[in-house]
Amino acid sequence: MATHLGDYFDEFTHRDWQTLDPDAVDDPVRLAIVGLGWFTHNWALPGIQRSAFTEATVVTDVDADAVSDLAAEHDLTGVTPEELKSGAVVDQYDAVYVATPNATHLEYVESAAEQGKAVLCEKPMAATLERAERIVETCEDAGVPLMVGYRMQTDPAARRVKDLLEEGFVGDIVHVHANMSQHMLGELTGEADQWRLDPELSGGNALMDIGIYPINTTRFVLESDPHRVIGHTRSVHEPFSEVDEHAAFQLTFPDDVHALCTVSQNAQHHSRLEITGTEGQLVLDPAFYEREDRGVAVVRGGVEATIDFDQVHQLEEEFAYFGHHLLTGTDFYPDGRHALTDMCVLDALYESAETGSPVAVPDAGSHD
Amino acid sequence: MATHLGDYFDEFTHRDWQTLDPDAVDDPVRLAIVGLGWFTHNWALPGIQRSAFTEATVVTDVDADAVSDLAAEHDLTGVTPEELKSGAVVDQYDAVYVATPNATHLEYVESAAEQGKAVLCEKPMAATLERAERIVETCEDAGVPLMVGYRMQTDPAARRVKDLLEEGFVGDIVHVHANMSQHMLGELTGEADQWRLDPELSGGNALMDIGIYPINTTRFVLESDPHRVIGHTRSVHEPFSEVDEHAAFQLTFPDDVHALCTVSQNAQHHSRLEITGTEGQLVLDPAFYEREDRGVAVVRGGVEATIDFDQVHQLEEEFAYFGHHLLTGTDFYPDGRHALTDMCVLDALYESAETGSPVAVPDAGSHD
Repeated sequence: MATHLGDYFDEFTHRDWQTLDPDAVDDPVRLAIVGLGWFTHNWALPGIQRSAFTEATVVTDVDADAVSDLAAEHDLTGVTPEELKSGAVVDQYDAVYVATPNATHLEYVESAAEQGKAVLCEKPMAATLERAERIVETCEDAGVPLMVGYRMQTDPAARRVKDLLEEGFVGDIVHVHANMSQHMLGELTGEADQWRLDPELSGGNALMDIGIYPINTTRFVLESDPHRVIGHTRSVHEPFSEVDEHAAFQLTFPDDVHALCTVSQNAQHHSRLEITGTEGQLVLDPAFYEREDRGVAVVRGGVEATIDFDQVHQLEEEFAYFGHHLLTGTDFYPDGRHALTDMCVLDALYESAETGSPVAVPDAGSHD
Repeated sequence: MATHLGDYFDEFTHRDWQTLDPDAVDDPVRLAIVGLGWFTHNWALPGIQRSAFTEATVVTDVDADAVSDLAAEHDLTGVTPEELKSGAVVDQYDAVYVATPNATHLEYVESAAEQGKAVLCEKPMAATLERAERIVETCEDAGVPLMVGYRMQTDPAARRVKDLLEEGFVGDIVHVHANMSQHMLGELTGEADQWRLDPELSGGNALMDIGIYPINTTRFVLESDPHRVIGHTRSVHEPFSEVDEHAAFQLTFPDDVHALCTVSQNAQHHSRLEITGTEGQLVLDPAFYEREDRGVAVVRGGVEATIDFDQVHQLEEEFAYFGHHLLTGTDFYPDGRHALTDMCVLDALYESAETGSPVAVPDAGSHD
C-alpha cells in the first residue's frame, strides 16, 4: 500500500496558495495601519513585519500618543487619521489595513478607495449590514482589491480540514458543532478595546466579534453558505447590558447540513470546531484563537490521528497571503462579497434573536 | 490548603444512592425479561446477573427459539408472551423488564401492572406520547413502581458531572453541546433489531432511539427541563426512508440556557456532552455508549484534569439501582413522570421538524 503519508506530512504547513518566492521579493506591499488597539500591537503588526510580502510604513489612530509611541518604536511614519485621509503620506503605502472599531471601518475604506489603495479590513466588516454593503460597493466602484481579515482561512489546520472534506475523507457531511468562548473583559486588555460593549461602535458583541469565527470557518471549510438561521442572544452581567454576552445559533447549509454554534464573551475559554460525516470526523480543538495552538484530530472508522505540527503565526500567514496576492494580481478568497455573506448571516441571526423565528439569509453574491 | 482531593478520588465511583449492603441481600428482586434482542443479550441480562440486588428468573419473546435457547443457557424459565401475560409464572418474578420494540412496551406494562409487579421499561418509553402517558397512568393507577432505563443516570461519570454543576464548579451554565452518532446498521447486529427502521414499531429513529441520550442526560445533570425546542430531521439513505436518519435540535432550558444537539444513525461513531459555564467546562467524551468507556475532562480557568477511573458496567449499575430501590421502597429518580418529559420533548421535536418552527414543550409533571 502506497500511503502518500510522507507527502501529507511534508505538505501539511505548505502554503498551497504561494507561487512567488519570498526570498525574491524586493518590494513588499507597504501598509498603512489604521487602529492601534490590542490586536494590532500584539498580532497584526508582528504579522506584517514577519511576512516577506508586506511591510508596515505608516500608522494612525485617534489616540495621538499611541501613534507617536508606536511610530518611534518601529521607525514608522505616524500621522493623524485626518492626515492619512487627506493623502498627506499617500506615497508611503500601497495598501491600508483597517483595524478600528467596526462602526468606523467605512470612513477609512472610503479614503483608501479614493486613493486607489488596496484594503485589508478587519472582521466583522462593519457594525451594520448596510455599511458593509457600502464598503464592498465603494471598493468595487473604485476598482481597489478588498480582503477581509479571516485569519483562520490561511491557517494550515483549517486548510487541511478543507482539503480532507473536499476529497470526501469524512463521506457526506452530517453535522457541525462549533463553540468559541472567552472572558472578554479579562482576556482582552486595555480600556481602548472595550468599544465592543458599545452597540453603536460594534454593532453587537458575542455574535459580531466571535460568532463570526464559527460562521466563517464553517463556510470556508464546507465551501458553501447557510441559507437559513436561527439565533438566540442573551446578556446577564452588567457590562454587557447593551450588547449580546452569550449567543447560541444554528446555520442551515445546503443538503440540510446543520452547524450548531455557541459563543460567549463571558464563559470558560474554549474553542472547538467538530465536523461529523457519514465516514469520519474532523476536529479542531483549540480552534479559533490566535493566541493558542490549533489542535487537529482526524477520525475515520476505528482509526484516529492527533496531528501536531509546527504552528504558524496566523497574522504572518494572513498578511503574507494579502501581500502575495497583491504582488501577483490574484483575487482574494475572503473578498468583500465573501465577507458580505457573513454580515447577512449576522444580520439574520440578530433578527431571529429578536423574533424567535428562523430567518432566511439573502444571497450576498459571494459565488457570483 | 486542604484539597479534599483524596475524598474526591475515593468516592468517584461510589454509589451515592446505596444504603443497603449488597452482601447482606439474600432475596434479590427476581426479574421477568421481555424482549431478547441484541441489547438484552449483551447488556441487560449480564447487568441483571452482575447486580447483587437483582436476578433473572423468567424470559420471554415473540421468537420462541430465542426464548428456549436463552432459558437453557442460563437456567431460566422460558415462557411465551401470552403465558407471561396470563400469569402462568407470576410467582417466579417480582418485577418485569420490558425491552421490546417501543410500540409494544404498553401491553407488557399493562399485564405487569395488573399482576402488581414493578416495571423497568426501556427508553424511549413508547412509540408515541399518547401511549407513554397510558404507561405512566397504568402504573400510577395500579400503584406499581415504574422506572425507565436511563443507564447514564447511574453512571458515576454523569453523577459526578451533576455533582460539580450542583456545587457551582463551572459557575453559571452558559451552553451545552451534545452529539451521539453511530452506524446503526453496522454496529447493531441482527435483523431482529432493525424494527427501529419501522415507524409503527419505533415511533421514529435517530431522535427516538439516540436523541433521547443527549436530552435525558442534559436534563439529569442540569436538573431542569427544556420548555422550548426546535428540531430538524432528515433521511438520505434508503434503509431510513421511513424514519429519521439524522437529526439536529436545540433545547431551551430555564435562564435561556441552550443545549445544541445532533444525532445520527448513519455517521462516524462518536458521542460527546460538553457543558460550558462562566467559570469552567465539563466534558464527557466518549459520553453515551454502553459499549465504550466514558471520558471525563474537568476544566476551570487554566487548569484541566482528565479523569480516568474504574469504569462501571452501566447495566449492572442501572439494575442494581432498580433492585436496591425496590428492596428499600425508595422512589426512582427516572420514574414515569420524568420519562414522560422526554416523550413530550421528542413529540415537540418531531412537530418542530414538520413545521420548521420552535415548539413549546408542555409540562409533563416531572417536578410535581
